[in-house]
Formats: sequence, structure tokens, C-alpha cells
Amino acid sequence: MSNYRPLTESEAVEYVKGIKGLFTGNIDLKSKEIGDGNLNLVFHITDESSEQGVIIKQALDHVRIVESWPLTKERVRFESSAIAIQDKLTDGMVPEIYKYDEEMALVVMEDLSHMVVMRKGLIEGIKYPRFAEQISTFLSKTLFYTSDLYLDPKEKKEKVKEFINPELCEITEDLVFTDPYFDAESNDINPELLPYLEEKFWNKSELRKEVTILKEKFMTKAQSLIHGDLHTGSIFIDQEEIKVFDTEFAFYGPSGFDVGAVIGNLILNYASWTGKDVTDEFKNDYREYLLETIKDIWNKFEAKFRELWDKDAHEVLKTVAGYQDNYMERLLKDSIGLGGCKTMRRCIGLAHVEDLDGIEDLSKRAKAQIFALKLGEAMVTQRENLTSIEDFIEIVKNITRKEG
Amino acid sequence: MSNYRPLTESEAVEYVKGIKGLFTGNIDLKSKEIGDGNLNLVFHITDESSEQGVIIKQALDHVRIVESWPLTKERVRFESSAIAIQDKLTDGMVPEIYKYDEEMALVVMEDLSHMVVMRKGLIEGIKYPRFAEQISTFLSKTLFYTSDLYLDPKEKKEKVKEFINPELCEITEDLVFTDPYFDAESNDINPELLPYLEEKFWNKSELRKEVTILKEKFMTKAQSLIHGDLHTGSIFIDQEEIKVFDTEFAFYGPSGFDVGAVIGNLILNYASWTGKDVTDEFKNDYREYLLETIKDIWNKFEAKFRELWDKDAHEVLKTVAGYQDNYMERLLKDSIGLGGCKTMRRCIGLAHVEDLDGIEDLSKRAKAQIFALKLGEAMVTQRENLTSIEDFIEIVKNITRKEG
Repeated sequence: MSNYRPLTESEAVEYVKGIKGLFTGNIDLKSKEIGDGNLNLVFHITDESSEQGVIIKQALDHVRIVESWPLTKERVRFESSAIAIQDKLTDGMVPEIYKYDEEMALVVMEDLSHMVVMRKGLIEGIKYPRFAEQISTFLSKTLFYTSDLYLDPKEKKEKVKEFINPELCEITEDLVFTDPYFDAESNDINPELLPYLEEKFWNKSELRKEVTILKEKFMTKAQSLIHGDLHTGSIFIDQEEIKVFDTEFAFYGPSGFDVGAVIGNLILNYASWTGKDVTDEFKNDYREYLLETIKDIWNKFEAKFRELWDKDAHEVLKTVAGYQDNYMERLLKDSIGLGGCKTMRRCIGLAHVEDLDGIEDLSKRAKAQIFALKLGEAMVTQRENLTSIEDFIEIVKNITRKEG
Repeated sequence: MSNYRPLTESEAVEYVKGIKGLFTGNIDLKSKEIGDGNLNLVFHITDESSEQGVIIKQALDHVRIVESWPLTKERVRFESSAIAIQDKLTDGMVPEIYKYDEEMALVVMEDLSHMVVMRKGLIEGIKYPRFAEQISTFLSKTLFYTSDLYLDPKEKKEKVKEFINPELCEITEDLVFTDPYFDAESNDINPELLPYLEEKFWNKSELRKEVTILKEKFMTKAQSLIHGDLHTGSIFIDQEEIKVFDTEFAFYGPSGFDVGAVIGNLILNYASWTGKDVTDEFKNDYREYLLETIKDIWNKFEAKFRELWDKDAHEVLKTVAGYQDNYMERLLKDSIGLGGCKTMRRCIGLAHVEDLDGIEDLSKRAKAQIFALKLGEAMVTQRENLTSIEDFIEIVKNITRKEG
């Protein structure tokens, strides 16, 4: 029998008091449940006197977010195991884990409430000049060192096995790659957007085919241990550093899914300014910043990934002329294509983003959503023609001239 | 402690006597070890009076075929689990399994010694007019029904996990996709072939790059539960039926690896006639038969796979216009490309085939090997231009006019 039970706020305090060495001296702990309550309990526990804090994230047992998705507590194992790997590879670009308790389905981790969730910062129009440098390090190290380029093939296959993550993958398969492309029940649609979807979007058969090809890639390509949900709401940021969190979707999938999640979410923010009451000067300047960031993310990521390859790939791979160039070009196409799916799903499917849903006027919101959908569509259908990130930036600028 | 021990011939008799209902009536069992003794013991046990027989295949413990590949007994589990799935899907196109004994690392299975190993039949120039029909059924059913096209995504991922098969995959990764393309120690090279390899083959950088891309596909693309070693030496055949055996390499990999293994091995036989003392009339006629067979295998496979798709794929996939065509075209390219690697490895790497090594004159053998290498190379480097199997047959005929 399992001793699992969902904690109350006061039990959460008792729980952390039981962890040796976590809080020291005279402590006066306060506990507040701050999760949205759907999937997990999240307790923010602070010591009033020292301003120290910790987070407890506890999985609720067998929740269902929609009828067909029961979620077991096992997802906490994926999160804590993946964070441990990412932590080691990136030298701490993830929250520190103080304790993983399998039976209670919880992790106790670093309190990062002094930082801001990146999505919020972007919505406020804040620039993060170091972000491209930081996220490109995170992406290159986590994606390279968990791939067959570096790992012993047997060790890699054991990792693939350890991270088979059917429940969380199914959520992505349905919400990112299936439901938004037809009139599915799970969708969450702005009524002002509906006519566009019915008349001009759901009948795009080329788009739907290409999205299905990308879904197949998501379901079959065990390339690297990916974060699996690396949108701007999974990144804490300040002007100094980033911390990537919410890693329960981790599994062995296509590396481009992580790179694309970052780019696709920057594109969502880029599109959102169409619906907002800001000056053209601000809008143009901020968008220029976003495109520069996307360009820098890819170019820095590529340079770092190639550097790791030249240094640490299997010797035999280093001797194959042209393979690295080919690999990087395919990774660019995957990133933009998979990122395009991430962009589109946030306009149609379950689980929107505040960048767009913060636009209260539904007609203005629809305009921004349509812009985002056109950008996402281009990412998917034009990906195979790309040879550089600059090609992609050019596509975005062209669509902006017409639509943005 | 495990009770595992390698059986002797007489212990093998006692073992099958202990299986209830296997032999009935007055029995007089004879036992003969007929394996090559490197990886497995294979006992052929027959009842003199009734002419009934069974096979025991027992894995040797922790064998090494080369320094870096220790093989555990676990491979028997992959074999028996995969056979069970193939049996159900193909209505008995595999040997019947009477017993799987995990601890003893053995399977007791149907005696198929009244049939011939297909490779031997091809070497003798025998035609099997029903083979294309039979193998296309085996391939379409096993590859379709174990893929994401049909299976529930969660069930498929559990199967991927169950069939993570690092040891046997590593053998293929090294022997099929790596070692033959440079002067590796594991290679087994006809001295008369060596000058060609040194002067004209190992410096082909485009070929080496493309083989590495195919190796990546083998290592990352979890598309279907594949046999993993489906050459003509893994198929028992007579004029009535086929039985596919030696399934210990089974894992979730690219479907084209199985289709390509069959095609690549027919191509090896096709090339071998260059080195043999047969009339031109016989040679041309038999080669025509082989090419027709290859054409029929693909076309029948494609038709059957599409039929299963239209009948049994997930409903949502049936509504995506153009996806099936795209899937089949990629599968053709994968099959020919991966098959090309299977063709080339048999000329250079460890583990040759009798089709070529049966040519005793080393200079004649080299001529046939070079022909096979040119065919294999074209399969790899020209695969992306193929739109039908007829395109491929045309390529083979062109090379034959110049080289064969």
C-alpha cells in the first residue's frame, strides 16, 4: 500500500522541517499553495526571518485534464530524473532539487520567486539581452550530450527506455499535432477567430499533411533527451540568469522540438503586439529585438553544438565529411517546423498563452491570432526550403509586411 | 542463483521429454547439435519412429563475437516475444514456439528441416514464384500493425520499451553501418578486393555521409517492431510457404530496414552470378526473375500496406490527404537505402554470405563483390530520387549493362 496523500499547507511545512539541513537556525515557516490546482499542488514555503524559501511540487493522483488522459504520479519521476541530468550538463540552469520522494510523488526544490517567468517579462515588453547566449548553452549541452553523437549507444538506449513517457507525450500528440487542425472538441476557440478557421484554415490540406509528418517525427525520432515543453512559461529569468523548469514532459524525442518551442513562443509574442495598444515605434523596436533574439539563439546554438561535436563526438563520426553540416541543416528544419506547430496550437487548441489571451478585445485578439497562425503555417510548410535562420527571419518579415 | 547451464545432446532429449504433450506414444528420440556454436546451441531432436522433430535453440551465456560485444542471454526473450507477435499478425509465418524458458535461455520450436533456407535455394538458382506474395504479406502485416498508424500510442510506447535491444542493435550499427566504410579491424576482406576498396571505395565521402545518415535513422527511428535481420538466410522456404526465423535482433526501428534486408539480399544473389560458371542464358533469365521478384515484393507490399491503412489506421489519420502517399514514398527510399547498406556490408564486413563466398576463385569473387558494391552504393546515394520501384529496377539494369 502506498502512503501517498496530497499535502495540506501545514503538512507541507512539517514535511520540509523533516528534511535535514534544509532550513537552519530559528525558523518560522509559512506555507502557501500557489499551483493552479489542476495537475499538481505547488507549495511556496518561506522562512519569514531569513527570507529563505523552497517549493514543493506534488503530483495529484490520477488526474484527468480531458476524458482520455489519465495522468499517473509517475510524471514526477520524469521531472526529477531529467532535471538531474540537465543540472549536471548545464552547470545549474535548472532549479536545485533538495529532495525527490517517489512515494509522495513530490519534489522539494529551489525557490525561484525572485525571478520572473519569461512569458510575463515578454508581455511587458522587457528585453533580455543575455537570453540568446543562455538558452543556446542550455539547448546545445542538453541536446548534444544526450544524443547518439556523444553517448555510448547502449547507455543511450537505456536512457530512452527510462524516459518512455506515454502519458505526457499523448498530451502533446493530441494538443499540439492533432486537435488544432480540425474542429475537435478539445479546442478552445475565440468566437471571433472561428470564421477564419472554418473558411480558411481547417481546409488547408498541405498544412495538415505536413503537421502529420511532424507528429510522426515527434512520435518516432528518439534523437535526444528533450525537455518536451520548453515554452517561455517554463523559463525563469532575470537580467543575470535563466532557470528552466517544469520538465515532466521529458522524453527521447526530436531535438528540434525544444529549439522550436523557444522560437515558436517568441513568434507568439511577436504576433501578439498586433492586438495591443502600443506605439508603432515600440512595436517595431520590440519585434526587431525578438527577431534578433531568434537569430542569435539559432546561430549561437548551432555554433556551440558544432563545437561540442568537434570536441566530444564519437571519433568515427568526426571523420565523416559533410555529416555535421547535414545534421545541422535537418535540425534547423525540424526546429522551425516543430516550432510552427507550437505556435499554432496556442491559438486554437486547449491551453492558450497570455501573450494572446491578454488581448481583451476579441476581435483584436483574433487579428493577432490570425497573424500567429500565418507565421506558424509558414514555419511548417516552408521549413524544407530553409538553409539558414536568416531565411526564416526573411519569411517572418515578409508576412509581417502583409499581415502584421 | 540461476540454474542456467548449456545443455548436452542427451540433456536436450531429457528436456523435451519433460514438456507435456510434445511427443506422444512410443518415442525414440535422437538429438544432434547443429548450431555453428558461436552464439547459440541448436539441437535437432527427432523421433525415429514417427519422424516428428523439434528444435531447441539455447543462447550461450555472455559470448563475445568481437572484443566489444558481450551478448547476454536476454536475446532469447526478444526472439520469443517477437515471434509471438509475428505469429499472431501473420497467421503462422514463423516457427511455432512450444516453450520459452527464460532461466535456461532457450526456446523449443517447430522443426522446419523439411524446408530449405532460402539463401541456399537462390544459390542453386531455384525460383520461388510465390515468395513475393508471401513476404509482402509478412512485411505489411508486421510493419503496419506494430506502428503508430495502428497501435494505441501508449501501447506502442510500452512495446518500444519492451524491445529496447542494445546488444543486438550494436552489432548492426557496427557491422552494417560503420566498419565496412573504412579499413576497420573487424572487416573480413577478400585480398583480391582490397585494391578496389583502398583506391576506389573507402574514399567515397558522399557515400560515407549517406550511410551515416542511414545509421542515424537505424538508431533513432522507432517506427515499427522490425525483425531486424531479415536476410534470405532467415527464411525457410519451399514451393508452398515461408517461415521467417532468427528474430533475436527485433526492436523498434525503421520499417524500411526489413523491406530493405530482403531486397538487398536478392541484390546480393543477383550480383553473385557474375562470378559463376553458368550460361548467359541462365544468368539473364535468373536475374530477370530476381528483378521481377523485387518489383513484385515492393508493389505487393505497398498495396497491402495501403489496404491495411485504409481499413485499420486511426480514424484521424485517414482524413489527412496525401499523408499516406508521402509515408509510402519515404518508406520506399528508406527500404532501398537501408537495403543498400545490407548489400555492401556482406562484401567487406564481418559475416559474409555464401552467394558470394561460394565463388572459390578469389579474383572472380572480387568481380562479383565489386558489382554488388556498385549496386549497394547506388541504392544508398540515389534513394532520394526514387519515386517507384521501377525507378530502382532501371538503376540496377543500367549498372548491369556496364558492370554485370
